[in-house]
Amino acid sequence: MTAPSSVVTSPTTVITHDSLRTFTFQVFQKMGCSDADAEQATDTLLSADLRGIDSHGVARLSGYVRLWKAGRINPRPLIRIIHETPSTATIDGDKGLGLVVAPKAMAIAMKKAEQAGTGWVAVKNSNHYGIAGYHAMKALQKDMIGMSMTNASPLVSPTFSAERLLGTNPIAIAIPTSEQPPFVADFATTTVANGKLEILQRKDEDAPQGWVQSKEGEATTDSAAVKKGGALLPLGGDRIHGSHKGYCLGSIVDIFSAVLSGAGYGPWAPPFVSFLPLPEDPVGEGLGHFLGAMRIDAFRPREEFKKHMDNWIQRFRSAKPAQGQDKVLIPGDPEREMTEKRLMNGIPLLTPVIDDLQEVAQELNLKFEH
Amino acid sequence: MTAPSSVVTSPTTVITHDSLRTFTFQVFQKMGCSDADAEQATDTLLSADLRGIDSHGVARLSGYVRLWKAGRINPRPLIRIIHETPSTATIDGDKGLGLVVAPKAMAIAMKKAEQAGTGWVAVKNSNHYGIAGYHAMKALQKDMIGMSMTNASPLVSPTFSAERLLGTNPIAIAIPTSEQPPFVADFATTTVANGKLEILQRKDEDAPQGWVQSKEGEATTDSAAVKKGGALLPLGGDRIHGSHKGYCLGSIVDIFSAVLSGAGYGPWAPPFVSFLPLPEDPVGEGLGHFLGAMRIDAFRPREEFKKHMDNWIQRFRSAKPAQGQDKVLIPGDPEREMTEKRLMNGIPLLTPVIDDLQEVAQELNLKFEH
Repeated sequence: MTAPSSVVTSPTTVITHDSLRTFTFQVFQKMGCSDADAEQATDTLLSADLRGIDSHGVARLSGYVRLWKAGRINPRPLIRIIHETPSTATIDGDKGLGLVVAPKAMAIAMKKAEQAGTGWVAVKNSNHYGIAGYHAMKALQKDMIGMSMTNASPLVSPTFSAERLLGTNPIAIAIPTSEQPPFVADFATTTVANGKLEILQRKDEDAPQGWVQSKEGEATTDSAAVKKGGALLPLGGDRIHGSHKGYCLGSIVDIFSAVLSGAGYGPWAPPFVSFLPLPEDPVGEGLGHFLGAMRIDAFRPREEFKKHMDNWIQRFRSAKPAQGQDKVLIPGDPEREMTEKRLMNGIPLLTPVIDDLQEVAQELNLKFEH
Repeated sequence: MTAPSSVVTSPTTVITHDSLRTFTFQVFQKMGCSDADAEQATDTLLSADLRGIDSHGVARLSGYVRLWKAGRINPRPLIRIIHETPSTATIDGDKGLGLVVAPKAMAIAMKKAEQAGTGWVAVKNSNHYGIAGYHAMKALQKDMIGMSMTNASPLVSPTFSAERLLGTNPIAIAIPTSEQPPFVADFATTTVANGKLEILQRKDEDAPQGWVQSKEGEATTDSAAVKKGGALLPLGGDRIHGSHKGYCLGSIVDIFSAVLSGAGYGPWAPPFVSFLPLPEDPVGEGLGHFLGAMRIDAFRPREEFKKHMDNWIQRFRSAKPAQGQDKVLIPGDPEREMTEKRLMNGIPLLTPVIDDLQEVAQELNLKFEH
């Protein structure tokens, strides 16, 4: 099924969420995951496709398969608590899929929060965990505020640095509401996601100033700069626009996720792509995450809080728009609308992604129908 | 004593830290604070001058006096816990000085952390609390990670909004180290601080794109735009440079500080200046803060963590600088260097600030020597 050209600009094929789920589940089964873990990994991964964060969904499935083939992912991990207090835990992910390790860690954070008011879990020895927002949103089911962050392969230069020392290190926070849809912020601590640069490269177009720098650390609009040894820039772009604040945020995510847990931090974070070697002088194990849950009624009666969140959202949503704009959005609005649309109409996949999934199917002796 | 012209560009008078302390302490005493509270308020306020964040130090002292005269600050507050769990507390600041309320809240957060691993305190019914970093850094004394945020008078427009709905809503995080100086991030969630705009206005210079917008929500370089009804912009500046991420951050600070605690949130946050009326339809009490402390050894042996933090800092500090740059800075470096300098050489104050303090001295029948 080909998507109507009014919806997408590149050649795509639309797959129903159900078919994509079935196929993805089978891939994780073939990797040796238990049914429960394959189910969880599928749910985590496809939440990205549903929410429109295409770079973090099935487009990465072949990457996980390659990491598994390279022996860097353990499909049957013994995920265990190695240290804990009433409100904290540190978890060893045993090289498991981050897609599975992080939900287990979040469940522990929520259990701690039930007892102690809040729960905070640092995770080491994990892998890429999909989108940060998925994990934070888990807390909403229990009227908790959810928080999630992860470090990632070094692609970002701190302010004034020519070297890449940080990942795109995202932060997500989900906050419960009553009648209004929940507040869900989920963003990389860079000016822009790498995926947006790839789109410009395909179209052979320049990037705006403040997105990337050259290998020597010079400002550039070359959308291929990162591929040429340059770097993504921290949120803010340059010093005059506050890039030192984006650098602070990316650093905090790195330290909470990896230094606190005992994972590989900064330039020692393991690369997502299997063809890049692991750091020779590791300072920790695998990738790190940090997950948190705060019970609303640990601070204030929950119905009172949720009523005020509704009011907050209504006030912001009804603000006078800036000249030339339609309306003020609430964090989570675009992703929620995308989810509704894609559950109904299916998920458009670019041709290179389809080809990639075909290849995975062939390798693992599966059928990928589309 | 006049500062050497090599150090400053505007006419200033340099005051020793000790004289400024004595005077500030006397002002808070005259407002009716207990000696202990006057001491605490002085310490909090002057930490801004020492760290070089001049807009948040004694330059604001007259503002606090005016709020007190308007009956909006209670110099003898009954600061009390109104709700708690093992790892959380909600505090009513009883209209006290934020400079005093926040340190009490932080002490409670740290006590909770000693017992439960982490401690999180939401504060309502408070006032301006000085610099966020001061409160976060308190945790360092006990080998804890400290966190601090506050909402503030609405001066910032969300992405796509012509209305001001958020404050500059800062976030501070302080992280302990072993041999290296601590990591201290402390930043407003806007592109730039209002103080930097005031400097440009005095020099009659334009602002860079991405700092402010006009009353109608149009991009502008008019450094006086905020005074003309325009707004500061969230970190990122515009949508293409990620201002929606700065908007998320400012919103999270607002919700954690004020919706969670029961303070005035968003456009209902009380104004700092006493000549502006309080909101007519309040949704909460006073200003809100959110403070947190996490014990390092709630996650990992503390010496191990601190050794890795040293390594993190050394690696980042020794990174190859970008073309045209000297070196990569670690969050907290510039403020620490400034503190050392100012403790030794004194604190330069601009003439309007000196005049302001003179006036306060006269009003309260005090001597301000300089």
